[in-house]
Amino acid sequence: MSVTAAKGFTAAGIAAGIKQTGNPDLALVVNTGPRRAAAGVFTSNRVKAAPVLWSEQVLKSGQLSAVILNSGGANACTGPKGFQDTHATAEKVAEVLGTGAGEVAVASTGLIGVLLPMDKLLPGVEAAAGALSEHGGEKAAIAIKTTDTVHKTSVVEGDGWTVGGMAKGAGMLAPGLATMLVVLTTDADVDSESLDRALRAATRVTFDRVDSDGCMSTNDTVLLLASGASGTTPAYEEFAAAVRTVCDDLGQQLIRDAEGASKDIKVEVVNAASEEDAVEVGRSIARNNLLKCAIHGEDPNWGRVLSAIGTTRAAFEPDRLNVAINGVWVCKNGGVGEDREKVDMRYREVHIVADLAAGSEAATIWTNDLTADYVHENSAYSS
Amino acid sequence: MSVTAAKGFTAAGIAAGIKQTGNPDLALVVNTGPRRAAAGVFTSNRVKAAPVLWSEQVLKSGQLSAVILNSGGANACTGPKGFQDTHATAEKVAEVLGTGAGEVAVASTGLIGVLLPMDKLLPGVEAAAGALSEHGGEKAAIAIKTTDTVHKTSVVEGDGWTVGGMAKGAGMLAPGLATMLVVLTTDADVDSESLDRALRAATRVTFDRVDSDGCMSTNDTVLLLASGASGTTPAYEEFAAAVRTVCDDLGQQLIRDAEGASKDIKVEVVNAASEEDAVEVGRSIARNNLLKCAIHGEDPNWGRVLSAIGTTRAAFEPDRLNVAINGVWVCKNGGVGEDREKVDMRYREVHIVADLAAGSEAATIWTNDLTADYVHENSAYSS
Repeated sequence: MSVTAAKGFTAAGIAAGIKQTGNPDLALVVNTGPRRAAAGVFTSNRVKAAPVLWSEQVLKSGQLSAVILNSGGANACTGPKGFQDTHATAEKVAEVLGTGAGEVAVASTGLIGVLLPMDKLLPGVEAAAGALSEHGGEKAAIAIKTTDTVHKTSVVEGDGWTVGGMAKGAGMLAPGLATMLVVLTTDADVDSESLDRALRAATRVTFDRVDSDGCMSTNDTVLLLASGASGTTPAYEEFAAAVRTVCDDLGQQLIRDAEGASKDIKVEVVNAASEEDAVEVGRSIARNNLLKCAIHGEDPNWGRVLSAIGTTRAAFEPDRLNVAINGVWVCKNGGVGEDREKVDMRYREVHIVADLAAGSEAATIWTNDLTADYVHENSAYSS
Repeated sequence: MSVTAAKGFTAAGIAAGIKQTGNPDLALVVNTGPRRAAAGVFTSNRVKAAPVLWSEQVLKSGQLSAVILNSGGANACTGPKGFQDTHATAEKVAEVLGTGAGEVAVASTGLIGVLLPMDKLLPGVEAAAGALSEHGGEKAAIAIKTTDTVHKTSVVEGDGWTVGGMAKGAGMLAPGLATMLVVLTTDADVDSESLDRALRAATRVTFDRVDSDGCMSTNDTVLLLASGASGTTPAYEEFAAAVRTVCDDLGQQLIRDAEGASKDIKVEVVNAASEEDAVEVGRSIARNNLLKCAIHGEDPNWGRVLSAIGTTRAAFEPDRLNVAINGVWVCKNGGVGEDREKVDMRYREVHIVADLAAGSEAATIWTNDLTADYVHENSAYSS
């Protein structure tokens, strides 16, 4: 399944020795055609990793033959040498596959500021190419994990065509994009302009609205490759809906595996004057550390929701705000509403609705609670 | 000392029964004149507590005779009844002191969304008035504590005049203003316009640059009252410097007492194109949860500093950024710099310098690390 669910793709995931643990750390995804159309979206962080700078350039042609992905090192903030390493990796992939480096995207994830062990990575490329298989999607998904506790894959079947994908990400999950690497494949015969349009439309309402810890990565990459192997060109809307469904599914899997989280929080902002207002308010709520601690403590602390709303530029009147937590309207008209004792917070899913009473637009942001485990995991990550 | 270090002020701090613990929870500060000039700055949160709405109105006259402050309840998001309670509190103070309610500022701190126990607060006002003393500053500072582990006071002596003050705050510390109540007093003979100018200039570079957890309160209040009792009118710059020194000192005390913190972090942004850029970058670094966890783990993870800088709109080139942690330039020109093993992080003070190489402006933001204790304290606060 995963990236090899669609016809016209092979993949592999191997342990190249980049990670000191010996766990799988190198994935290769190859488009065997007949088409090579592709699209990508990347982090909006202005400090971009070398593989992001490389892949953005490569994507300008709208064509990709392969994607090489490594965990165990982000190759970010590594200067000219880091970019040379990314280039050399793409060249090596092109050499073993008999294609051009200009059709090879590179993605990396792991610690920032450390050069990759090229003496292990380049031989790893040969080993990965030797392991390519039409059933290799699962192994590829496993090889891109960092602090992920599970690998993430998703597949949607169309009428004679398929969209599938894999994702990694468990921390530094924040908008524009959630911190992650994602490769989506399809055997639908779709040109690169339509792929780009469908991918941007999908990420805008899925990965861009996953905000685990407010931290934006230097390496976020989402790629969509189309082989055309099904011989079918679906209607654009149908295809775009499938891409969105896969992105949504993978985004949910990212949140559910967020570092140290004990609660998955759905922040739904309704009756906003604009979608932008709804997104701004949703992000402000999702990033409020005090609220995230309260949710961890199963405390329906709606005052922290209101104080988060109050820091935004969105249109609202303080005395018309309403907030529901798990279906109980604990805040009405900016003040005390239903009895907070009625709120049942025993389960992992928490649903916050913020009603701005200022219009008819809405948006949903996904986040999680802030826990001692998050602190522990992220205070020990690089040392 | 505290608010009674300057001549012309009395104060009291008592236990009125607002807190269920029986700890002191009501403070009264009275200006005995001969002057009554005053100025105030308040939270920029658009969801403002009732006492903030009240005190903003009162301050328009530039005159204050007294300030009544309670801990044990924020009186925020409490609707019309909450505002009536604030008004009734000011009326009661005016009644017992023989002044007008329009010269009484009110400040509250504690849980949002809960009405104050007026049956305890109003008799408390009488008790506080009965306890007023020229030596009551310390007790007043103690009575405004919430999760503070220590009370905070500061005094600067001028040539024949004094500026003193008290502060409370340990969480929800964020810009515009850090979450806190602060009352400053002086016996200098200064008009309300000069007080306002000096107070805004001071808070802009002190409390506004204390960012403990990125959470902005609904109740932040900083008041400055001048009795004129020294009979001295200092030069404006001299007076403004004293106010800034007291604000800076109290701001440092707030950060050192931040909830659960084990490290005090000074984030200094240098060589920025503008002061605004420096402040934006400093805040972005100070609010990065992953970095704050890394600092807690004594890990000089400069990659997280760069990823935080990259999310800002400030002028910079990624390959010209430099970062020092505790004096070691671990990042040079956007890449690996000096050996990170050289960074000594055993002490509570951590100093991060971010060099944007884009100009000559600078700013410093104060924050602290993110710890399991912070999570614990804030997941259990209201329950």
